[in-house]
Amino acid sequence: MHDISPPGLLSSVFSSGIPDCNPTVSPRLYHICMAPVSVSTCQVLLIRSLARSPANFLEEEGNRGLVAAVFGILFSSLCVLVLDRDPLPLIAHSSQSTRGKASGPWILALLYYPAFYYPLIACATVRHRVSYLVGCLLSWCHCVVHIWQKVDCPQSPKIYRYYSTLSYIPIILCLVLLSLWYPALLIRSFTGQEETLDKEVMKIHGVTQGMLLSDTPLRFCLTGFRIPLKLVLSITTAVLAVYQVALLLLVAVVPTIQIVRAGMTKDIVILLVQFGLVPSESPAVPGDMEKELNTVKYYLWSLEGGFLARSCPQISNPEDGAVLDVFYKAHILRPSRQAIVCWMSFAAFQTAFACLGLLIQQVIFFICSVGFTFLFIIPLQSGTNTYLFKIIQNMWPFWLTLVVAVIVQNLAAHYQFLEQHPLRKELTNRRALYIVTYLLFPINVLVGVLAGVWRMVISGLYNAVHFSQLDISLLNRSVENFDPGYHAYCHYLKIEVSQSHPVMKAFCLLLLQLAKPEGPPGLQASNVEEGIQLMQPKKAPPSRARFKQSRARWWLAYTLLKNPSLTACRKTALSDPTANGTQLSPPKP
Amino acid sequence: MHDISPPGLLSSVFSSGIPDCNPTVSPRLYHICMAPVSVSTCQVLLIRSLARSPANFLEEEGNRGLVAAVFGILFSSLCVLVLDRDPLPLIAHSSQSTRGKASGPWILALLYYPAFYYPLIACATVRHRVSYLVGCLLSWCHCVVHIWQKVDCPQSPKIYRYYSTLSYIPIILCLVLLSLWYPALLIRSFTGQEETLDKEVMKIHGVTQGMLLSDTPLRFCLTGFRIPLKLVLSITTAVLAVYQVALLLLVAVVPTIQIVRAGMTKDIVILLVQFGLVPSESPAVPGDMEKELNTVKYYLWSLEGGFLARSCPQISNPEDGAVLDVFYKAHILRPSRQAIVCWMSFAAFQTAFACLGLLIQQVIFFICSVGFTFLFIIPLQSGTNTYLFKIIQNMWPFWLTLVVAVIVQNLAAHYQFLEQHPLRKELTNRRALYIVTYLLFPINVLVGVLAGVWRMVISGLYNAVHFSQLDISLLNRSVENFDPGYHAYCHYLKIEVSQSHPVMKAFCLLLLQLAKPEGPPGLQASNVEEGIQLMQPKKAPPSRARFKQSRARWWLAYTLLKNPSLTACRKTALSDPTANGTQLSPPKP
Repeated sequence: MHDISPPGLLSSVFSSGIPDCNPTVSPRLYHICMAPVSVSTCQVLLIRSLARSPANFLEEEGNRGLVAAVFGILFSSLCVLVLDRDPLPLIAHSSQSTRGKASGPWILALLYYPAFYYPLIACATVRHRVSYLVGCLLSWCHCVVHIWQKVDCPQSPKIYRYYSTLSYIPIILCLVLLSLWYPALLIRSFTGQEETLDKEVMKIHGVTQGMLLSDTPLRFCLTGFRIPLKLVLSITTAVLAVYQVALLLLVAVVPTIQIVRAGMTKDIVILLVQFGLVPSESPAVPGDMEKELNTVKYYLWSLEGGFLARSCPQISNPEDGAVLDVFYKAHILRPSRQAIVCWMSFAAFQTAFACLGLLIQQVIFFICSVGFTFLFIIPLQSGTNTYLFKIIQNMWPFWLTLVVAVIVQNLAAHYQFLEQHPLRKELTNRRALYIVTYLLFPINVLVGVLAGVWRMVISGLYNAVHFSQLDISLLNRSVENFDPGYHAYCHYLKIEVSQSHPVMKAFCLLLLQLAKPEGPPGLQASNVEEGIQLMQPKKAPPSRARFKQSRARWWLAYTLLKNPSLTACRKTALSDPTANGTQLSPPKP
Repeated sequence: MHDISPPGLLSSVFSSGIPDCNPTVSPRLYHICMAPVSVSTCQVLLIRSLARSPANFLEEEGNRGLVAAVFGILFSSLCVLVLDRDPLPLIAHSSQSTRGKASGPWILALLYYPAFYYPLIACATVRHRVSYLVGCLLSWCHCVVHIWQKVDCPQSPKIYRYYSTLSYIPIILCLVLLSLWYPALLIRSFTGQEETLDKEVMKIHGVTQGMLLSDTPLRFCLTGFRIPLKLVLSITTAVLAVYQVALLLLVAVVPTIQIVRAGMTKDIVILLVQFGLVPSESPAVPGDMEKELNTVKYYLWSLEGGFLARSCPQISNPEDGAVLDVFYKAHILRPSRQAIVCWMSFAAFQTAFACLGLLIQQVIFFICSVGFTFLFIIPLQSGTNTYLFKIIQNMWPFWLTLVVAVIVQNLAAHYQFLEQHPLRKELTNRRALYIVTYLLFPINVLVGVLAGVWRMVISGLYNAVHFSQLDISLLNRSVENFDPGYHAYCHYLKIEVSQSHPVMKAFCLLLLQLAKPEGPPGLQASNVEEGIQLMQPKKAPPSRARFKQSRARWWLAYTLLKNPSLTACRKTALSDPTANGTQLSPPKP
């Protein structure tokens, strides 16, 4: 892998002055020591029958923040790995001798790192004081080693002197989170509060006020349900992906531009002027190119500024989609082979799509900024008329004609061809309509060309902006399942819904029944009733219950404010036999 | 316009040996003579109150082929105009003096040509023997002059020596059609058969067999209804657009490649080798470059062949879309300002989109063929390993890992994680599922990157292939109306349906009621009944009626074969009160 990645070229450009740095605890030593510890920890956890199996970490009741942190470490390790010269530090020196040939260590590393960090999840999943203690020690150990390595060697010759340090920051932050989480779990296990940390925060509490419907899984959480764990994972790793890609772009592109700007000589400017890329008043004479040189430097500077301004990318909420649309098609809510595979790879896909989406947006932004600088900024600043301005100058009567033709057609349609009956509008003056249509046909063809260009631009931009959103298909409605991202999202949702809480199931089925009047009978009806029975208030400590009730009421008010159409689906409305909608009578208490 | 169009550059390259040719009847003479004739003909037709107004040419009962031919002439004139040095031959010599500045004549020409050819439509619309005679003379005159001009001067210095002649072929063909159509109309008017030519062919005949529903306006025609005239126009002009764009591309690109191939010297090859674009075994020495020169020539030849093979473009049927989807949203079938404007510009938009779509496809095809030639053909032929092959060689274990990971996940999902109950499938072995998900996370990220690339490619290709189809929105379902083409199509359909035959209206409304159970009541119901009453068989001459009836039965059988779901909507099914669907009892005869 390492022979096709950029560092080969770039390292020679940027980091030539930085010597190879050997930290006190070398990566090889670290892995040689920690790998056996990890393996033996796993063995002990798997063999000794403790309170719970260490494999249940993706259950809904797990320590969600902890699991997300480990997945974050895993993804960041993958990012570091992709550009690394020694993918597998355990057998580092053997691979260095056959450099450029062996992708075997690299593939092994893909499986090694998940196993290496597995004890960090497993120790929390087992829920035993000893395992919490082991988790504490392990996470502290990892954390200390990583921080020590980076304090020892903050600079590295890879790509950019601080790139290595910056790309390790997410790993260190996640390890710090783990080093705090495990002691907290340990302390709680001694004080007797066996509940996990975030379970406390995000526990299911029955919403006793009535039926709340919302249109995204994310909002289900707000009305008392939980965000699926997979979603937490994918959001975490997507955020990290955006960080890593933005970091890579920044450290790889900006120094290049700086170096190019510093090394810009008059010879190169003459070449640019001869190619017509830079406006020049005088013909290309090597003697006096000061002004053109400044123009080029100014241009490069503005490009750099644009790139830096783009360094805070917008992260679109990957899940804020129309679940109703998805369920409208994929309403057989039961697991299948495809659905399981999609569920397994969903978080990974979300992460990969976030990376690619950011890259695409960056490329488009770069092309646009280059075009804008060349076509507008430089001509405006240098005062020289260039190609584009000449075209605009020559063609303004043409643009004016198109605009006038469109306005005339709109006015004529409104005042001449549309009879404004009090009850309904009707077509009138047909002969004039036909003649205008005929006479304006050639102009309309030209308007159509502009509309076509706009169609091309808007569809391209829409797809680029929404590339990282899996819940939106980039294809047309009729073929939307050929989009691999959307396909994965639909199937992920199927599993998520089919395996989730009966209340959520009941809601989804109600949604489906509202969308399709011939809803699936039988089995589903029992789900609905089960869900409604689960909604009955449980006995809870009085003060706590009052707090929860008031919070639920606030969420209810908020949801109904955001979704006024849901009022008809509330329990009171549903139990009223005169109301419209599904005639669903709740079970008598 | 003419100073930014390609001929300025290209004419000097290709057509330097061809002298300016002056036909016996110069364009200027032709227009000076014919323009007054056209104007006076229009005046006479408009002033004298003949059988019908000359402005009714877009009515459904018009001579459809004739109108389509005139629109074809108009569009071809526009194509010729765009690249023309003398857009308005009437004032040609004055504009030539201020060449490069005046776009005034060009804009005037956009309005001049429709008026110039208007009598050719108007004469047929008036439906009078005298007007038919005038139409005869006019069309013969236009036709003879055009053919004469092209026989006089088959070659011209514009772009390519035969380009001008080839681009005039559609105009001449349309004029020939008109020159035959008008005499036929004249003869018919004397023999007393007042029906127009194609009315005979495509007349509405009541389908007495029952209710036929189909899903496109185009198929309505097949089941006894007519294609809307606007659709005929847009298909005609779209076909001409494809011809003109393909012609322009062929004559502009292929000779360029031929010239480049002929002028390829060793110096240029050395440059290409130095840039790494052409594989070379020996370092760039000017002496011995024979093999590399042959490689480059071979490459250019294959490029040329690819371009020629692409010269028969696929014309997608622009209207074969899902009308049900459109009506599902745009079901208020009444005219509005926007709808009228869209109706007016629909044919023009379709034409422009066909042009642009072909261009985009050509560009993509070109890029792909260049990439394919460089990355596969040349390395395979010259036997030199290049970049891509090296990457594939180095990375095969990587690709293999990804493929194996995907296969393993699918097999595990099928045999391990899915319990095959006899009644329904259920998730099982959750712990193993969680562990596999965790361990394969890094590999799945890489699979996700590939899926993302595929998403990008497939959405781009889909949009490029379907660019010229207005009935498909290139945007996502939720924002599909921001697509200007789809927007125009929806509104065009609104007007077309709201102004069409009550039978078609009734069908559309039945479609809507089937799609949405809460269909619009009242007014629409009357439409349905009106439509059904119109379906009652009329008294017709017995032999003819039998022929029509048998034809209708064949169409019915064909339609039901193609759309088996429509059987439930047939009259017999509908009148049966036990059947599902709309309970619509037909009026008793």
